[in-house]
Amino acid sequence: MASGEDKLIARFFKPLATHPGALALNDDAAIFEPPAGHELVLTTDALVAGVHFFPDDPADAIARKALRMNLSDLAAKGAKPLGFLMTLALPSDIAEAWLEKFSDGLWADAKEFNFPLFGGDTTRTPGPVTISIFALGSVPHDKMIKRSGAKPGDRILVTGTIGDAALGLAIRKQPDFAQTWKLDPVSSNHLVARYLLPQPRVRLVEALQAHASAAMDVSDGLAGDLAKLCHVSGVSAEVSAANVPLSPAAAKALGSNPRLMETILSGGDDYEIVFTMTPDDVPTFRARAAMADVAVTDIGGVVAGDDEPRFLDAAGGAMSLSRKSFSHF
Amino acid sequence: MASGEDKLIARFFKPLATHPGALALNDDAAIFEPPAGHELVLTTDALVAGVHFFPDDPADAIARKALRMNLSDLAAKGAKPLGFLMTLALPSDIAEAWLEKFSDGLWADAKEFNFPLFGGDTTRTPGPVTISIFALGSVPHDKMIKRSGAKPGDRILVTGTIGDAALGLAIRKQPDFAQTWKLDPVSSNHLVARYLLPQPRVRLVEALQAHASAAMDVSDGLAGDLAKLCHVSGVSAEVSAANVPLSPAAAKALGSNPRLMETILSGGDDYEIVFTMTPDDVPTFRARAAMADVAVTDIGGVVAGDDEPRFLDAAGGAMSLSRKSFSHF
Repeated sequence: MASGEDKLIARFFKPLATHPGALALNDDAAIFEPPAGHELVLTTDALVAGVHFFPDDPADAIARKALRMNLSDLAAKGAKPLGFLMTLALPSDIAEAWLEKFSDGLWADAKEFNFPLFGGDTTRTPGPVTISIFALGSVPHDKMIKRSGAKPGDRILVTGTIGDAALGLAIRKQPDFAQTWKLDPVSSNHLVARYLLPQPRVRLVEALQAHASAAMDVSDGLAGDLAKLCHVSGVSAEVSAANVPLSPAAAKALGSNPRLMETILSGGDDYEIVFTMTPDDVPTFRARAAMADVAVTDIGGVVAGDDEPRFLDAAGGAMSLSRKSFSHF
Repeated sequence: MASGEDKLIARFFKPLATHPGALALNDDAAIFEPPAGHELVLTTDALVAGVHFFPDDPADAIARKALRMNLSDLAAKGAKPLGFLMTLALPSDIAEAWLEKFSDGLWADAKEFNFPLFGGDTTRTPGPVTISIFALGSVPHDKMIKRSGAKPGDRILVTGTIGDAALGLAIRKQPDFAQTWKLDPVSSNHLVARYLLPQPRVRLVEALQAHASAAMDVSDGLAGDLAKLCHVSGVSAEVSAANVPLSPAAAKALGSNPRLMETILSGGDDYEIVFTMTPDDVPTFRARAAMADVAVTDIGGVVAGDDEPRFLDAAGGAMSLSRKSFSHF
């Protein structure tokens, strides 16, 4: 009786539906009791093979990236992950081995981030593999961190390092760049790995809730994303490009070619968090971030005005970025 | 500063984000306070051009069908619609006029069903238009109607009429069928319209909550869907094929070719609800359904056993259906 779709779901996805409200994927819908005194935070991202990932990327990494893009959005809002739903459009020639690896990747991250599958829909497509993740998180009442709360005088901080994924993508597309940029294999692999598998900053959720005035995840390039945050907050910003945190690998590449600063500041796929807080909040926040083992760096300050954020070079002059963010459009 | 994606969202989707928690689509996520004392019902469906709809179907009808498929799932669970998120993968040659019509369709149904847009993601695809809808609904605590509650002795009912969409799809694919089946244009158009635009039975939500022991939406064919409900409930069923409600158009087609009963019982896209309740509940339920102006029909009874539901012909013999449900796999 079971259709191909039913069998595929039973084999690859039922094991991920560990929450009782998922009803073992045996129903039309999942049932979910939101945590008392909390609000829900809802976000969604779609990934298309050939647009957001390479069709020959490892299927487990594709699955993990799909979840982590959404986990990063939740973390940037100060929200604890609750669970996800997924739609998956698959070409008819998809291999079972691919699905098995994909499901392994989902399983690994669902476990790591306590992020169970609530439901989904699987369908055929004459096009490329297309994955949509719909993520639910929760915040205590009125505690979601919006993009709109930045105030003049606030400091601007980012998590982790910026630009790795954009450089990693460039190497993934044209492996010669590793040599051009004088990178040893360890550095080159680091950048490619950062493109393949982002690190959502879920461990910072409570510290961000307590201290951040505004936040967003950096997915389309720091320059463009900070510009969006400033625009919605009705402020501007000054950032010292030299303060933007780089991995040793990205620093090496930049050393070989200073023009890569533009790729670093405007490339996509960082999945770090850019956020603002009053200078008084910074020391306590830094202590909490250190306890959570997440690097955070002060890159500049919020200023009054409605002009675009300025990225200043070593001489204090405003850099001119030919594009500020990455867009698939 | 705004990217192509930002402009597209501002123009076509921001007007749909009427709920304050959608933050006018200016943030990474939406914030949502679930109604007190209620549980959330979560469901998702994906539609791919060329698989779930014809690429040249009117874009507003495609949008409305995408929402209605999900509204039908919510209604079948006794859940009130709260809102939706959407991911949209678009080919690069998509026309603005298409997007405008698509957004008009979303708008019309978001308004009709009080079902606002909470957020989404828009991306390019080298493949066909692919739409994923994530729907949220709510039920009073412990009131979601599962597939698993059917008991021997319960009656089996369905809303509306069955088989129209499957016949409409056949005509959409091969217009000659209208003549073969001796259908006048009104009848033929009725069937095609039923394929294009399902009628989610949202008005039955409260009556179903109060009376149904089990329910699911009929999207992949009555025979196969009833079999799924029975399987999860651990019961079997006997249905009189003659009792399955048909529209005048479907009845005409069946009159011209009795073998169409199989298409009617096993075709997809009905988006009606099949549900069970004790015989004692039926009269009150019928009265409430009449007040909600939704036709409901008793088609048979739940019986003990774990064999497949039997569809009986006029002579009381079990019909043999070569396939019980529609699958894109």
